Amino acid sequence: MDIKVAYLGPTEKTYTGQITKSIFPDAERTPIQPIRNIMMQTDALKFDLGVIPLENIYNGHVNETLDSLLDMQSVRIVREVSMKIAHCLGALPNHAQIYKIMSKDQGLEQCSRYLCKQYPNANLIAVSSTDEAVRRIKEERLLNTAAIASEESLDKLEILAREDKLCPNNRTRFIVLGREETQATGDDKTFLAIHPPIDKPGILVDISKPFSRYKINLEYIQSRPDAKKGYTFYIELDGHQLDKKVIKAMNKVKDNLDPKHKHQDTIKILGSYANSHWKDEN
Amino acid sequence: MDIKVAYLGPTEKTYTGQITKSIFPDAERTPIQPIRNIMMQTDALKFDLGVIPLENIYNGHVNETLDSLLDMQSVRIVREVSMKIAHCLGALPNHAQIYKIMSKDQGLEQCSRYLCKQYPNANLIAVSSTDEAVRRIKEERLLNTAAIASEESLDKLEILAREDKLCPNNRTRFIVLGREETQATGDDKTFLAIHPPIDKPGILVDISKPFSRYKINLEYIQSRPDAKKGYTFYIELDGHQLDKKVIKAMNKVKDNLDPKHKHQDTIKILGSYANSHWKDEN
Repeated sequence: MDIKVAYLGPTEKTYTGQITKSIFPDAERTPIQPIRNIMMQTDALKFDLGVIPLENIYNGHVNETLDSLLDMQSVRIVREVSMKIAHCLGALPNHAQIYKIMSKDQGLEQCSRYLCKQYPNANLIAVSSTDEAVRRIKEERLLNTAAIASEESLDKLEILAREDKLCPNNRTRFIVLGREETQATGDDKTFLAIHPPIDKPGILVDISKPFSRYKINLEYIQSRPDAKKGYTFYIELDGHQLDKKVIKAMNKVKDNLDPKHKHQDTIKILGSYANSHWKDEN
Repeated sequence: MDIKVAYLGPTEKTYTGQITKSIFPDAERTPIQPIRNIMMQTDALKFDLGVIPLENIYNGHVNETLDSLLDMQSVRIVREVSMKIAHCLGALPNHAQIYKIMSKDQGLEQCSRYLCKQYPNANLIAVSSTDEAVRRIKEERLLNTAAIASEESLDKLEILAREDKLCPNNRTRFIVLGREETQATGDDKTFLAIHPPIDKPGILVDISKPFSRYKINLEYIQSRPDAKKGYTFYIELDGHQLDKKVIKAMNKVKDNLDPKHKHQDTIKILGSYANSHWKDEN
């Protein structure tokens, strides 16, 4: 029987849809929104796997992904996979002076350094998708408007700037969600959510020292306020959750934050997965 | 002469436009896009002050704000101010079963927990603004579509859910940018960008230990990859940059990360400003 995979929609044309098709060509694939829904339905066994974005080089981490993962029972990260996002800027071949630039919000943000330099007076218009931007320029014959989209989507438009100038080395990292624990490959990463039961100065030392002592490299850290005036620290580290030194370091963090072991949920493991070294792929 | 204030547009109806009007009612106010452009033009003396969003309780920090601040010469954060964002869900009074929900991307994300529970099969449609969502429902008589917007914008629509259920305690923090250093008030915060010249395990201990030693509370930390395979740590701490213990802690961090003092830009101060205790305002 085919595996059932949910991915972030609304359609298979989204970047998440494209990467899901490329890694699960034979699966039964269903577009779902929003991110939290994909997790909830995978948690509730309606799907075997889910595919959602975790991070973009320019936009940073998707907090909805991190915060939703925290609420799940059995769903965890089982794989990471990344995709180059090659934006171009295009306008009608007979375009006038450009004073409007249209794209999806994230696309405009990813290209903001270039746009501020080359089009400092342009009006930036966020629309629902990069395709929508192209469609409107063509249908409404917008001669003073350019769109940010893939070169393929900009078909029949004149390319004003390519990826290398507009938004170099742009990449999005996606995660595959599943319910089963992965095996260690020898080159893995682990995502943790650490919730100190008490807030006090020095928490970051309590958290970081054990990882330093066991020479575990931390790839990412972010603190997020929770609803109860406390904080959750999201950490991505080099190593698998079954590696002895990772276990030792996590136990020491728990000891530091909760010496009397009164709390159950000080550390939640959001997943261990093979390291794709995605930032080196550009 | 009136002071000139730039704020994130496109119009004065944006949340940034509203807060700018309320704190600078007599200023000459100009909507500018994107965030980086407001900073660049304030840095270039075209405006006296700039107002931009820094953080939303649900969406987290605006990385474009953090990353752009890093590139400025003289512009820094001089004040923080926050605003309650009270979303409601509304539809036409004679609406049918709702299977589409329209709003700005961030609005959909802020309400995702409620939407997944109450409308698990709805199609979420991101449009350019919350007003655009309301306009389309009214003009196109969309009977199966609801919009997320302020109660005021949802005028003449039926309210299906209010802020307390849809998206409780939602707040956005804005920063005022200026070029002059602030005076300490006795209850301040400071935003830092720390760029370790060498990447190695244990960096986080080198950074966090001095703050712990001087009992300086860290309100926020995030690591962001930079273009050269290094990292920048963004930190917000309790205290003013002119406080003796903050100076001592920063010097110790510099010593730890760059013992021979070979680098100039290990710590960049992004600003010190009075603590508004914005999270307690709900």
